[in-house]
Amino acid sequence: MAFLILQLRGLFVFLCCIKLFYNDMPKISQKGVDMPSSPIRKLTPFADQAKKDGKKIYHLNIGQPDIETPEVMLSALKNIDFKIWAYTPSEGTASYREKLTSYYNELGYGLTPNDILVTNGGSEAITFAMQACLNPGEEIIIPEPFYANYNGFACSADIVIKPIKSVIDNGFALPPISEFEKIITSKTKAIAICNPNNPTGYLYSREELEALRDLCLQYDLFLFSDEAYREFCYDGREFISPMHLEGLEEHAVVLDTVSKRYSACGARIGCLITKNKSLYQTALKFAQARLSPSLEGQIAAEAAVDTPDSYFEDVQREYTGRRDVLVKGLNAIEGVYCPNPGGAFYVVARLPIDDADRFCQWMLEKFSYQDETVMMAPATGFYSTADTGKNEVRLAYVLNTEELAAALLCLQKGLEAYPGRQMPV
Amino acid sequence: MAFLILQLRGLFVFLCCIKLFYNDMPKISQKGVDMPSSPIRKLTPFADQAKKDGKKIYHLNIGQPDIETPEVMLSALKNIDFKIWAYTPSEGTASYREKLTSYYNELGYGLTPNDILVTNGGSEAITFAMQACLNPGEEIIIPEPFYANYNGFACSADIVIKPIKSVIDNGFALPPISEFEKIITSKTKAIAICNPNNPTGYLYSREELEALRDLCLQYDLFLFSDEAYREFCYDGREFISPMHLEGLEEHAVVLDTVSKRYSACGARIGCLITKNKSLYQTALKFAQARLSPSLEGQIAAEAAVDTPDSYFEDVQREYTGRRDVLVKGLNAIEGVYCPNPGGAFYVVARLPIDDADRFCQWMLEKFSYQDETVMMAPATGFYSTADTGKNEVRLAYVLNTEELAAALLCLQKGLEAYPGRQMPV
Repeated sequence: MAFLILQLRGLFVFLCCIKLFYNDMPKISQKGVDMPSSPIRKLTPFADQAKKDGKKIYHLNIGQPDIETPEVMLSALKNIDFKIWAYTPSEGTASYREKLTSYYNELGYGLTPNDILVTNGGSEAITFAMQACLNPGEEIIIPEPFYANYNGFACSADIVIKPIKSVIDNGFALPPISEFEKIITSKTKAIAICNPNNPTGYLYSREELEALRDLCLQYDLFLFSDEAYREFCYDGREFISPMHLEGLEEHAVVLDTVSKRYSACGARIGCLITKNKSLYQTALKFAQARLSPSLEGQIAAEAAVDTPDSYFEDVQREYTGRRDVLVKGLNAIEGVYCPNPGGAFYVVARLPIDDADRFCQWMLEKFSYQDETVMMAPATGFYSTADTGKNEVRLAYVLNTEELAAALLCLQKGLEAYPGRQMPV
Repeated sequence: MAFLILQLRGLFVFLCCIKLFYNDMPKISQKGVDMPSSPIRKLTPFADQAKKDGKKIYHLNIGQPDIETPEVMLSALKNIDFKIWAYTPSEGTASYREKLTSYYNELGYGLTPNDILVTNGGSEAITFAMQACLNPGEEIIIPEPFYANYNGFACSADIVIKPIKSVIDNGFALPPISEFEKIITSKTKAIAICNPNNPTGYLYSREELEALRDLCLQYDLFLFSDEAYREFCYDGREFISPMHLEGLEEHAVVLDTVSKRYSACGARIGCLITKNKSLYQTALKFAQARLSPSLEGQIAAEAAVDTPDSYFEDVQREYTGRRDVLVKGLNAIEGVYCPNPGGAFYVVARLPIDDADRFCQWMLEKFSYQDETVMMAPATGFYSTADTGKNEVRLAYVLNTEELAAALLCLQKGLEAYPGRQMPV
């Protein structure tokens, strides 16, 4: 009996310990578990180690431009004269929305200030659009490869991304409309494009936009147009927005940001644009909950609209030159194929490798050429379909042409030495 | 037969018209429909009209302080010297998180920089905490009345707020723990408090915090502590955070902002603090998706940590004086009751009225005294339980004592003239 009591007491203590252990650890949400980490940042520890080992790294992995922010924008920031750093209206200040209207109307968007909702970066604009248009479980179709953080926004809004594969062989053009129709269901609420595209740099044509318009009208879908890279179109090619197309007034949602346009990623000022009043009012409710975008960011972004044309001409010339060096250089390497993109400052290239994740890590961890190496983003992170893009990488041409040439040589030497080298069939 | 064909053709045209009509209007989400609009801003059209009619309005309805932002913070903004307005790390800059650590550790929080995640305002910190801890459909318990935007964040995260009523008669003290226990279910994941409280101004005691700690440990719940008003504690009373209590390391989540502390609402810099590594890493994934908080906001907020003590002493003296004028003045009006709050810059007062929404609108629309009137926030917007707080209003003492005295006189005259006057039973 005494033995049994002892045993029971032992069991009780054991159970208490278990309880204590579990009590020490309230569980995070399944949504939190499912939330993807940034595929672009996951190689960072290897880069840090490479730097510690004394290697110089050419960073072609990130979209942080090395171009200077326009002086007119920085001056506005330095000359702020408020005494109280106050909230602004949730939709943004009247003066900034008016100034933005003039910017967009020069592009032919036909807006009023009441069509523009200022957000904390383009990221918040995308989140607002997803939440205002899609219920949990509903679907948005996006051509892949696509901007990896769309996965995070979709997870956060509990919506489902249905990818459609675009292919490197035609430069990542819009997939045939019949492919979209195959996966449209009663749950489909929207189609999203990024134009010019991140990660592929592809610039959609007027015909492609018109095909999407007809599809959205036929199936009653919203068309999200992420135009973060609008200013970066090359070879004199025309930029087309859904805002240019008749009939899409209630369907088109433009998602924009000052981040790349003015090399002002850290200002966190973007906007959501729609002529659909019901959608605007709904997005505004999400905006009201978070009170306001930043006051000083809006002041600077308002001033930025006056950036002289010469700034953009210089930037375009610079990026076109970089793109030419990079694309030509990549295609000159044996087994490498890189289409010539019409916009943004990214390319996706096919390499003679077995596995882009392994190769990019190997370049940081095991390889160097004259104490230098190259950091790239494995394209797998931009595909939603598993095991896709395994021999592709994204390169951002955010370095000058001299450094790009050095990076290309380094990449070539890396490809020659890589143990998983595998020529495309 | 010809007649039938004509009829059918008519029907076809009619159906096409219907289709066209519906096609013109893709539907917004049910979540968007359910999203609450700001209860504080819904009286704005009436205020705008009153201003057009030439009335002066005493704005006691909003939490935008009239106190100047510390000079050290504005100087930092004016003296930024970057050339490229770049992203910062998603979790915030290392130097700002280090500086914040020193601020919090002076308060006895015992943090490292790796416990702090910088956010776009306190709003984003609340959203991250909800999404990282609660799945769609799971529940968080919050004493009501509570900050109205919690409803918006909860709707956006698809989680459910379970309110527990705190009452004006004891100054909105923490409801008995037994009331919490009554509504805890398997879906309950967290309890949230705002301390000092918006809208009631109530400052929770150490005993109340300890009771919440024991409850959270017993039922394995996260404890969210919204500390936006931490610097605003009066009468020498002690501020207690869950970070001060032993045993809550894995459960406590502090949500903070520079908005009220430095009168810098428009800077949109806040943070989420937790020692729970798993939670931190999860919140970081949400932060990575939106890339970064603003660079210049963090530079200014870092400088703000050096705000001299005299600034806070002046602010405390000013607010204490205002609170005393307001609370004394309110209690001197026949039929009005207002508890004396220990913190923040709000009071909730009981008025001799039938309906706070009607009364606040009436004050703007129908009433003036010497061409002046008062704008208040009906307390109904801060209760989640229907038909609660109908004879209560929230007043923010964000005006100087002279203006507060004038506003009080105006309110008294309004209450005397209001057709829906109704003395409390």
